[in-house]
Amino acid sequence: MSDSLSNISEKAGMPPGSLVHVGDALEAESRISVIDYSKETIEEQSIQSIGEILPFKDTDTVTWVNVEGLKDVEIIDSVGRILNIHTLVLEDILNTHQRPKFEEHDDYLYIVLKGLLLDNKEFIVSYEQISILVLKNFVVTFKEKKDDTFMPLKQRLKNSNGRIRNLGSDYLTYAILDTIVDQKFFLLDSLDELIESTEEELLTDPTSETLVTIQGIKRELIYIRKSVSPLRELLADILRSDTTLIQEKTHIYFRDVYDHVLRITESIESYRDLLSGLLDIYISSVSNKMNEVMKVLTVFASIFIPLTFVAGIYGMNFEYMPELKWKWAYPTLWVSFITIPVVFIIYFKRKKWL
Amino acid sequence: MSDSLSNISEKAGMPPGSLVHVGDALEAESRISVIDYSKETIEEQSIQSIGEILPFKDTDTVTWVNVEGLKDVEIIDSVGRILNIHTLVLEDILNTHQRPKFEEHDDYLYIVLKGLLLDNKEFIVSYEQISILVLKNFVVTFKEKKDDTFMPLKQRLKNSNGRIRNLGSDYLTYAILDTIVDQKFFLLDSLDELIESTEEELLTDPTSETLVTIQGIKRELIYIRKSVSPLRELLADILRSDTTLIQEKTHIYFRDVYDHVLRITESIESYRDLLSGLLDIYISSVSNKMNEVMKVLTVFASIFIPLTFVAGIYGMNFEYMPELKWKWAYPTLWVSFITIPVVFIIYFKRKKWL
Amino acid sequence: MSDSLSNISEKAGMPPGSLVHVGDALEAESRISVIDYSKETIEEQSIQSIGEILPFKDTDTVTWVNVEGLKDVEIIDSVGRILNIHTLVLEDILNTHQRPKFEEHDDYLYIVLKGLLLDNKEFIVSYEQISILVLKNFVVTFKEKKDDTFMPLKQRLKNSNGRIRNLGSDYLTYAILDTIVDQKFFLLDSLDELIESTEEELLTDPTSETLVTIQGIKRELIYIRKSVSPLRELLADILRSDTTLIQEKTHIYFRDVYDHVLRITESIESYRDLLSGLLDIYISSVSNKMNEVMKVLTVFASIFIPLTFVAGIYGMNFEYMPELKWKWAYPTLWVSFITIPVVFIIYFKRKKWL
Amino acid sequence: MSDSLSNISEKAGMPPGSLVHVGDALEAESRISVIDYSKETIEEQSIQSIGEILPFKDTDTVTWVNVEGLKDVEIIDSVGRILNIHTLVLEDILNTHQRPKFEEHDDYLYIVLKGLLLDNKEFIVSYEQISILVLKNFVVTFKEKKDDTFMPLKQRLKNSNGRIRNLGSDYLTYAILDTIVDQKFFLLDSLDELIESTEEELLTDPTSETLVTIQGIKRELIYIRKSVSPLRELLADILRSDTTLIQEKTHIYFRDVYDHVLRITESIESYRDLLSGLLDIYISSVSNKMNEVMKVLTVFASIFIPLTFVAGIYGMNFEYMPELKWKWAYPTLWVSFITIPVVFIIYFKRKKWL
Amino acid sequence: MSDSLSNISEKAGMPPGSLVHVGDALEAESRISVIDYSKETIEEQSIQSIGEILPFKDTDTVTWVNVEGLKDVEIIDSVGRILNIHTLVLEDILNTHQRPKFEEHDDYLYIVLKGLLLDNKEFIVSYEQISILVLKNFVVTFKEKKDDTFMPLKQRLKNSNGRIRNLGSDYLTYAILDTIVDQKFFLLDSLDELIESTEEELLTDPTSETLVTIQGIKRELIYIRKSVSPLRELLADILRSDTTLIQEKTHIYFRDVYDHVLRITESIESYRDLLSGLLDIYISSVSNKMNEVMKVLTVFASIFIPLTFVAGIYGMNFEYMPELKWKWAYPTLWVSFITIPVVFIIYFKRKKWL
Repeated sequence: MSDSLSNISEKAGMPPGSLVHVGDALEAESRISVIDYSKETIEEQSIQSIGEILPFKDTDTVTWVNVEGLKDVEIIDSVGRILNIHTLVLEDILNTHQRPKFEEHDDYLYIVLKGLLLDNKEFIVSYEQISILVLKNFVVTFKEKKDDTFMPLKQRLKNSNGRIRNLGSDYLTYAILDTIVDQKFFLLDSLDELIESTEEELLTDPTSETLVTIQGIKRELIYIRKSVSPLRELLADILRSDTTLIQEKTHIYFRDVYDHVLRITESIESYRDLLSGLLDIYISSVSNKMNEVMKVLTVFASIFIPLTFVAGIYGMNFEYMPELKWKWAYPTLWVSFITIPVVFIIYFKRKKWL
Repeated sequence: MSDSLSNISEKAGMPPGSLVHVGDALEAESRISVIDYSKETIEEQSIQSIGEILPFKDTDTVTWVNVEGLKDVEIIDSVGRILNIHTLVLEDILNTHQRPKFEEHDDYLYIVLKGLLLDNKEFIVSYEQISILVLKNFVVTFKEKKDDTFMPLKQRLKNSNGRIRNLGSDYLTYAILDTIVDQKFFLLDSLDELIESTEEELLTDPTSETLVTIQGIKRELIYIRKSVSPLRELLADILRSDTTLIQEKTHIYFRDVYDHVLRITESIESYRDLLSGLLDIYISSVSNKMNEVMKVLTVFASIFIPLTFVAGIYGMNFEYMPELKWKWAYPTLWVSFITIPVVFIIYFKRKKWL
Repeated sequence: MSDSLSNISEKAGMPPGSLVHVGDALEAESRISVIDYSKETIEEQSIQSIGEILPFKDTDTVTWVNVEGLKDVEIIDSVGRILNIHTLVLEDILNTHQRPKFEEHDDYLYIVLKGLLLDNKEFIVSYEQISILVLKNFVVTFKEKKDDTFMPLKQRLKNSNGRIRNLGSDYLTYAILDTIVDQKFFLLDSLDELIESTEEELLTDPTSETLVTIQGIKRELIYIRKSVSPLRELLADILRSDTTLIQEKTHIYFRDVYDHVLRITESIESYRDLLSGLLDIYISSVSNKMNEVMKVLTVFASIFIPLTFVAGIYGMNFEYMPELKWKWAYPTLWVSFITIPVVFIIYFKRKKWL
Repeated sequence: MSDSLSNISEKAGMPPGSLVHVGDALEAESRISVIDYSKETIEEQSIQSIGEILPFKDTDTVTWVNVEGLKDVEIIDSVGRILNIHTLVLEDILNTHQRPKFEEHDDYLYIVLKGLLLDNKEFIVSYEQISILVLKNFVVTFKEKKDDTFMPLKQRLKNSNGRIRNLGSDYLTYAILDTIVDQKFFLLDSLDELIESTEEELLTDPTSETLVTIQGIKRELIYIRKSVSPLRELLADILRSDTTLIQEKTHIYFRDVYDHVLRITESIESYRDLLSGLLDIYISSVSNKMNEVMKVLTVFASIFIPLTFVAGIYGMNFEYMPELKWKWAYPTLWVSFITIPVVFIIYFKRKKWL
Repeated sequence: MSDSLSNISEKAGMPPGSLVHVGDALEAESRISVIDYSKETIEEQSIQSIGEILPFKDTDTVTWVNVEGLKDVEIIDSVGRILNIHTLVLEDILNTHQRPKFEEHDDYLYIVLKGLLLDNKEFIVSYEQISILVLKNFVVTFKEKKDDTFMPLKQRLKNSNGRIRNLGSDYLTYAILDTIVDQKFFLLDSLDELIESTEEELLTDPTSETLVTIQGIKRELIYIRKSVSPLRELLADILRSDTTLIQEKTHIYFRDVYDHVLRITESIESYRDLLSGLLDIYISSVSNKMNEVMKVLTVFASIFIPLTFVAGIYGMNFEYMPELKWKWAYPTLWVSFITIPVVFIIYFKRKKWL
């Protein structure tokens, strides 16, 4: 189920700037980790209080603070005070119903988007809001859930003796975005399989549950599209922006993410088209099945109703019914009892009803 | 029912500039309240005659005049004269079929939009036109109905020792807009629930009343969309405008409202998609039900019509029917009376008709 | 029926500039009236020959010539010569299949649009092409029909001691446009009522005539849309134009008409959506009715066909049928004749078929 | 049938610049005619070899060369060499699957569009590619078919003592375009009639052939749209172009053609909407008819199946059936045989099934 | 089946710049060929190691390297190092799920698009990614499959004593693009035939397999569209680009390819419209067939059920049934047995049920 459509009114009516977490709290406790690296050194640590990030603030090394779990409003509030973030941005971080967007502020950039994760057993997509604050040599990410999304990225940071550690916070931002966007490709692969198997089911044995599946995919697709389609604009905004926080030479990487987003968006449109095709097939095949049922009924009724009538005639009790006494009457009737159905069957075969 | 589509012709043909209230009069009497505040002081009062706002006109404090009920044309006329408002604007305030829009005049701004309120018991949306006149240190709002929409905002004005009282009439305008726009989130939440429960009903027990509900939601959605979708343009116009009545630093707040409007608009589009999916399911499930009915009929008819024919044969009164005298004829027939249905039932089970 | 789609080929192939009336001649004779006014004076007269407008041509007073009926090509030709109008414009005035548009020429403006009138008894819309030539202090309107469309405007000109007589030919043009556009609001009101009553009919007692009505409204809506939707562009063109014939201060009035056009266009789109919903309901309710019919048939057949078979068994004439001689056989059968239907009825009630 | 969609691959894979006729050769032999005119003189002649146009090339008179039939590649090749036309343009002239377009070259303009002709007996549209080369004082047109399309234009050239002969090759180009575009109005008129008669047929007596007709119109409309809709862009390109080959003062004429194209395009869109409405009616009326059939079946079955059962009861051969001996049993039964159907009929009448 | 939608997630999560082949490896081994030509000379050779292209790098002759088969990552890596290509570009070459695009880098251009090949026996389209690197006097193409796509182009290069060898790498690029785009025309021709034959089948004898075919074409069309529609943007980007690698005078050729792409895109849209029409016909014809079946059933049932009832009456065993003894009863009944069906048949004929 998509939580992106529920309880969005929770905070409506509050004064702007009041920090309250809006949405389902996906984690009870928050976890904060700090990675600080330069070309030569890298250091990762888990911190308890947000105040511990202060020493990293004005160094030349790149610092990445990852906050997982948004229930503890105090943390976001502290980050805001330390990094001098506008209250409206802090509010957006906490209100997990944001539309993906890119905002350019004086000293920092704010990016918010959705992480989509697939529960593998059934086709259930879980949504998570991820906010990114980009400052000079400083990146803060806010996730709703504690999970391994950023694990491979951290590994690359640690192992890499190459590019990623040479480049600044803009490249780190790109790497984070790329990780979140590429997650969606897994989703598309699953969708692809699911649609294909549903189509096969439709053509062989459509049941009313197939319809439920189709509608389920359709609904999920609407939500996915809602979280994915603004990404195109988001990345175009980044590329168009003339902020000094993203260097010219990193643009080519963001353009690569932009291409990925285009591919994802177009695939989603293709799936929509495919799905509407499936529904048409479903409706047609239901009609077809009813047709088949009707044909069976009609064939039986057309053959036996007239015969029953004939039998009914000679079941009448009139005194003067000369045929009743004729010796060959009964065998003759049997002949017609056999030939009439045969004629009908040939006729219906010709009409392709049998 | 949407009053936004009825009686729009009432004033057609009148000369421009003739002040007449167009639309259903939602309140018999008007109520005017004035709030005047600066950083240090705040004062609220109810006034009887519109002339009483004169003393507030050229002060440095921010004044907010809220007029509820539009039946008394005299009030709007007086406001127009006192604040030097163009007759066409006054007309628009009185004609409650306006399309939401933002107009920039020499000395003031004119904003008109729709307030949407949900009657909680049933899904009935009531519409109200709200006009906002923004002058230097002076804001006038015109509402059709007397209600508590602005109560929380007034509370914040009174209690706040912070931002809202420090900032000018542009921030007040933002706060008013925000209040009206955020009202719509409640609507979306209700819609969400209603659509979900309707979908469940559809999949378990669709009746023709479900169809009426779907069509009802669809109709309401058309009206909601009509009042909401121009808001996007309205806020873009405000952000694009170079009026001096809205300061650069307040822009970030209006952009926040703009984001809310985008989210509302996209949610409405999602609901439209979901609804059209519901209709498809409805049609399919009606077909499915008919299919089931047909199968029952066909199974009964296919089994018993041939058997009846067989019974009919031996009900004939021919003199020469040797079987009739054969002792085991009757039991033999009974065997076929039992085996034929069994064969049919197996056959239909195989075809998944039973 | 819409004449805007018929016989449009009548003039195809003629040389450009050949003045021929194209379309159905709605009036046999033409009528020309002249109103000449300034702030102090106003004078209205009916003229026979178009030459009589010459004295008004170069005065400072505003002159409005209204030509009703286009059959007399000579009149249009004379107007063209007197006012020095391009032949293509004259052709457009006469060819009543024009798409609404605004053209800026060196010394004059040309506006052509459609007047829509509703025949009140049935929902039949009649279309009329109205052309407006705007020169300095001189406005000529060409209507296909003699009717009272401009009567209220003329009254306002005569009575008014205010704005309208103070302002020039641009304000008069606005007033004419406003009159024609506001006519369409009446149409929308009627449409609104018609759609609402059709929907009610659909939900209570849909007949195949309801379908005809829906299709009729749909068709009319297509034609209305075709004549209304270019108005948006037309008014945007006027507002964008830098002609000196329309003064800056009149722009606010044209923008008001523009707003009206937007509202009309959006309402038409809403009606289209509503209508497509009606069609869906119709199709669903036809299916529902068939379902109900099928259930009745199935209930009857399922109950009585097996019973008839049982009766048929004991109507057989075998010599050895021990039950026939058993005394309680007949009453026992009656018990089953009563219990079997009861069981079936309970079963069908459970399935909600009854 | 539309040849515009067949065999488009014929030339794929050939080197660019290889002159080969692609498409069905509509004429076995080519015909070339030359019209040379100035304000005072006009001369028309049929020529055999394309070399004969050389003398006309650098004169001050306007020369119009009309080539009908494209099978003889040599002709196009010669024209190319004489007038110095780019090979790609010559290829486009010969490949009759071009999308209508306007190309501006250094010394000439190239316009290619489709001529649509209606075979009057049935609704079959034949397509023909018409290419126009516009040089200074020199216009060459290439048609696939020999027909009378340009006859009226030639007549006007010969008879006219007025405008057309005074103006240059740009006005001639306009006149040619106008002729080709106005041809389409005839098509629209026929379409209009056909759709109207089909709708009437649908509402009175829909057969499966009506469906074939609807699909036929739909298909034709898709092809027509494909050849017509790029015309809008084509004419906008001409109007936007700053070529010296089209004089400023001729623009008003091209704008007139542009208006015609707009009207044609919008009409085609309206027809599409109308057609989709027709299909909906068809499907509904098929459902309605089935409903009617089902009602007849249900009425008959519901009335007679129970009665047959009753008759069956008293056809049983039990020894102890006291009613059989009761004297009034038979008449009593007859009463019920009559009253039961009467009751049913009243019931079904109430349900509006009869 | 379209491989363009499967396994797109394979590389998600990898660091950017890691060269891994993504997609199904269509060829086990790679094949590299080099063509080097100038106006006078041409030389073609197959090379084993990519290092052999080094001598051609800085010559004045045009060199075209064609790499077929992408499994050997080493080759692409070497090309990258020799020609100084950005890692992201190399990644895109290897990841065969690229969206067609044009990228302008400092010293080279990168074009990636899809080659579509039709398996002639059935309507199965195979997709192949083709990448083009354009440097000064140097073009490298990367194909997934070894086939004859470029054979005709190579022939033209060898034979031609004309244009193609005179012009530079930009013209070669054009020729390659043209070859790939024109391949799609063959596809369209096949589609055209397939749709036409399906439509014929639909109107004569629609089976549920026809539906499968329609859905199959629809699905294929979605994939084709996905690979073709970005080509429009790609070519527009090339034409808009101000790179010095493509000379002004070659633009006309690229515009020609652009026109082809437009035609292909519009044809695909037409096919979509046609297909949705086919589905409507299918659904209608299924309904029609059911209607026919129902009529047969109704006719039989309506005729024989009442007659059977009549026969049933006189099969009753009441003692007092005076008709039974009346001599003419039986013949009289026969008269009604014959006339009743005749009356019914006439009635049904009138209703056009027979």
